[in-house]
Parts: sequence; C-alpha cells; structure tokens
Amino acid sequence: MKNAKGNSPIPVFRSPVEMQNWARERRAEGKSIGCVPTLGALHEGHLGLIRASAKECDETIVTIFVNPLQFGPDEDLNGYPRNEDRDLSLSRDAGATAAYCPTVEGMYRDDQSTYVIEETISKVLCGRSRPSHFRGVATVVAKLLNACLPDKAYFGWKDFQQMLVIKRMVRDLDFPVEIVGCPIVREPSGLAMSSRNAYLSTEEHSSAGCLRKALDAAEKAFKAQERDPREMERVAREVIEPVKSARIDYVECRDAENLAEIDAIEKPAVLALAVFIGNTRLIDNTVMTPDKEG
Amino acid sequence: MKNAKGNSPIPVFRSPVEMQNWARERRAEGKSIGCVPTLGALHEGHLGLIRASAKECDETIVTIFVNPLQFGPDEDLNGYPRNEDRDLSLSRDAGATAAYCPTVEGMYRDDQSTYVIEETISKVLCGRSRPSHFRGVATVVAKLLNACLPDKAYFGWKDFQQMLVIKRMVRDLDFPVEIVGCPIVREPSGLAMSSRNAYLSTEEHSSAGCLRKALDAAEKAFKAQERDPREMERVAREVIEPVKSARIDYVECRDAENLAEIDAIEKPAVLALAVFIGNTRLIDNTVMTPDKEG
Repeated sequence: MKNAKGNSPIPVFRSPVEMQNWARERRAEGKSIGCVPTLGALHEGHLGLIRASAKECDETIVTIFVNPLQFGPDEDLNGYPRNEDRDLSLSRDAGATAAYCPTVEGMYRDDQSTYVIEETISKVLCGRSRPSHFRGVATVVAKLLNACLPDKAYFGWKDFQQMLVIKRMVRDLDFPVEIVGCPIVREPSGLAMSSRNAYLSTEEHSSAGCLRKALDAAEKAFKAQERDPREMERVAREVIEPVKSARIDYVECRDAENLAEIDAIEKPAVLALAVFIGNTRLIDNTVMTPDKEG
Repeated sequence: MKNAKGNSPIPVFRSPVEMQNWARERRAEGKSIGCVPTLGALHEGHLGLIRASAKECDETIVTIFVNPLQFGPDEDLNGYPRNEDRDLSLSRDAGATAAYCPTVEGMYRDDQSTYVIEETISKVLCGRSRPSHFRGVATVVAKLLNACLPDKAYFGWKDFQQMLVIKRMVRDLDFPVEIVGCPIVREPSGLAMSSRNAYLSTEEHSSAGCLRKALDAAEKAFKAQERDPREMERVAREVIEPVKSARIDYVECRDAENLAEIDAIEKPAVLALAVFIGNTRLIDNTVMTPDKEG
C-alpha cells in the first residue's frame, strides 16, 4: 500500500521479530518491500531515498537507529541529533509505510559476539580514520536486512564507501536484496546534506562550502582531459588548504568500484574527501567516468 | 510437498539466485522450508536431520558443499569424500525435496572480502586447534541461509560447538530462522557417525571406540553425583590415554550454552573431546544436566 499522505501514523516496530512478522505478512500478500536505513535526524537526502523506494516498492520501511557499533570511542554517539516524532512524520509524508526503530538493548545483547567484517574496501579512506566503523555498519545493515526482509535497500552516494562495503557484503554473503544507490542531495550552497551539518556554526557552514568547491575544481580538470589521479587530489587540496578552520583528513582518487589505488583514470574513479571543519568531520565525493565524459 | 519417495530426482540448484527463486516461490505458496546444511558424504546422522526436517516442514532443502573456507591449510579438503549422485539419492529417499549444490566459484569470488566472525564461543575447543574454522562455518552458513531462506535449519549435536556458534550468529544477526539441534547418531559400536570415519583402518575403527567409552565413564561419574568438571575431564582422559594410536587434542568440560569455563556443574555442561586416531581427528561430546539427573 502506497502511503496516502494522510494523518494516520505509520506502524513502528521495536524488535526484530515484530518487524519480521510484518515484513513476512506483506510478502505473503505479494507486496514488494523497500528499506531505507538511517540514523534518524532525517534531511532531504534521506527523504529522497524514501521517495525513491516508495516509487519502486509497494511498502517502504524506514529504519531509525543510532547504531553505537559504528561510532568510535571519541566520536559523537551521545550528541548525535535525535527526534523520532519528527523523523516518523517526515518519513510518512515522503511515502514510508512502516518504521523500524529498535532499541539499543534489543539490537545488542551484553554478550553479542558475532560481527560482519569486510576486509578490503573498508580498510582505506574513512576506514583508516575510523577503524571499527565499517564493521559496525556491515553488522547493523546485516541485522536490518534480516529484520526488514526487503527486495531493495536504498543508500545515498554521499556515503560512497559505505555503499560499496554494503554492496560487497550483499554480494559476498548472498543477501537476497538489491542495493540501490541514490545521488547526493545538496544545499543551495553546494554543501552535501548531512545530519552532522547541524553541528556547524554560521561561519563554519560557510567554510564547509570548500568541499564542493574542491570537487568542482577536480571535475573541471577532468573535463579538460586530466587523467592523473594525483593531479586530481592536488587540485582539490589546493582549494581546501587555505580555508580557515578546514583540516583535511584525506583527499584521494581511487577506483570507483573497489577503492583500489589507481595510477590513471581509465575507468570510473571516485574523488573522495573527508575534511574537519572545526570539530565536525564532513565527507563528500564525485565519480568521474572517462567513457561518458572523457 | 512431502517427498513421495518415488524415483523422480529432486531439483538441484547450483547458484544462490536459482536457489532463492525456488525458495521464494515455495514461500509464496505458503510452504514452510527446512534446510539441512552438509558437506556431503551423507551418513545416518545427516539422514536423521533430513527426516526431522521432512517431518516438520513442507519442503526440505539439503545443501551439499565442501566448504574450502572451513578447512585449514593442512586439513583434508582435497581428500574429503565426495559422491553427489549417491548423496542426492539418499537425500530424496530420506525426504528432501530439493538440493543446493553450489560450485566453489559460485560461492567465493576471487575478491571475496566479507566474513562473519564469532568472537567468544568459537575461540575455545576446536577453535584453538582450527583457528579459521568457525569463521568459515559462520560465513558459509550465513550464505546458505540467505540462499535457502528456510524457516528452520537442522544441525547435529555431534558438532556441538558448531551448533552453538551458529545459534549465536542467528541470534546476534537476527536471521529469521530457527536452529534445531538433533541428537548424535552412533554406530552399533558407539562411535559417533562422521564422514571422516571412512578414513579409519579396521584397527583404528576399533580404537576409536574410546571416545564413547570416555564419555560413558564421565556420565557414570556424573550419575554418582560428581560435579567437578576437572574430575570429569580426568575420568575421560583416563579412558583414552592408554589406547593405542589415540592422541588427545582436548578433553574439556564447559558451560553447555556458551562454552565458558566452569568450576562446578551447576547447570547444563558439555564434556567435549577431540581425539586423533592415527591421522584422523574425531570429536564427540555429551551434555550433563544437573536438574534432570542430579
């Protein structure tokens, strides 16, 4: 049932078994299911994923769970913005027909001892700065897929590496689901939508524009037939380095399929960057495809 | 459809997608599915699992796959007995209605990089002697569950630690399946059925009887109110040590739920043993429950 955008709230499930029962009932009715995993604090990026799912699937489950397993010890787990009522209302209006909002205790028992690890794609870029992050992501996404039993699951390209890790996990473990990537949604300033943008002061928000400007500069060089990934990185760094309050974590140009190191851009490559603006770590990326644009 | 024990062969699927399509069609018809994962070389132990599934489920998928990921570098991967035609025929006669016999190439791509790891239960007993074994088991069982989409999956208690690791994985990752453990099936001599028994010479086969005799001795002590796990281990060792061609890998009495070390048998405990008979490594175990028997 597509959501009627009425005022009636969507059902909210708190445990894997409740969620599975609902999903199995929908499947038994012949309904297709889309799933949109989120940490909550929904913005237009998430709502675009929900709309994409609602367009393609009979049912759309939004999952809202601030997953402790993907936060490092010094990261913003406790401060991460939470507003479930607002998220549920926005989700429903964007086309979600159910929500899965498990509790931390329901997701992780004290003696949890099983994890899903990805040992190649997750080792570089954000995996270097956040060593246990992708193990937390892969584990929770496996759990969410097992609870929601979707035909398709939707992820944003902003978290490009996350999407690749999840696609790899789904392929390697034979999860019966299609992973759909959706384009980055940006503010008018060009800044990629992120729940963490809320941490930025007005001045920092302005500085954060340098991420998109750096990608613009690289894309311009690519259009001018530059195919050296080191040059792409240099061009992007040159934009960010002078910016007040910006500190580069990484700027790297790699194979867009498996994040392998490359010496020349001969097939799709991603230029990915992570930059601290003040204390807030932001990421962004662009994919450059030589056949189409070269 | 329960198998009619006719002569018509059961369908055999070679890829995850083929298997999933069949399983989803059966589910759409409202059928329940049981799954019996095996390495092939079926014996009465496996057939008991298939019969248990055929009794409880509308469809029973037997999976036959000699999983390279769970064999160590010096183990018997290449020599492991294989006879698919015989296995399929035995499976059908025991009540299986489909078989999943994937190829190694279809299961593991060259760039496979995702694994399921269990970090507590799998560290002791067989996990000490076979360090990557349970990572291979957990990963392949996750893949088999994702391919067969069963309501229930059946495992033998002979591989007690394996069953605990899989139960923990299913719990921790929210797989929508019930793991059913089935009793050990023994030869008239008391030796637990195992595909590896085929490696034993006649003389070794006779020596291998010491495993069951060691468990008998411990059970006798338990019935006489012995509750010291160290004493259980001593009693069992005393039976095995004098046996020609027997070399103990481990004899340990531990908590039967999580394999934790115990100082006294106050709730169900397992006495587990692994013994080399010549070059063949055999395992066996018994569970002792104080409430029932104490």
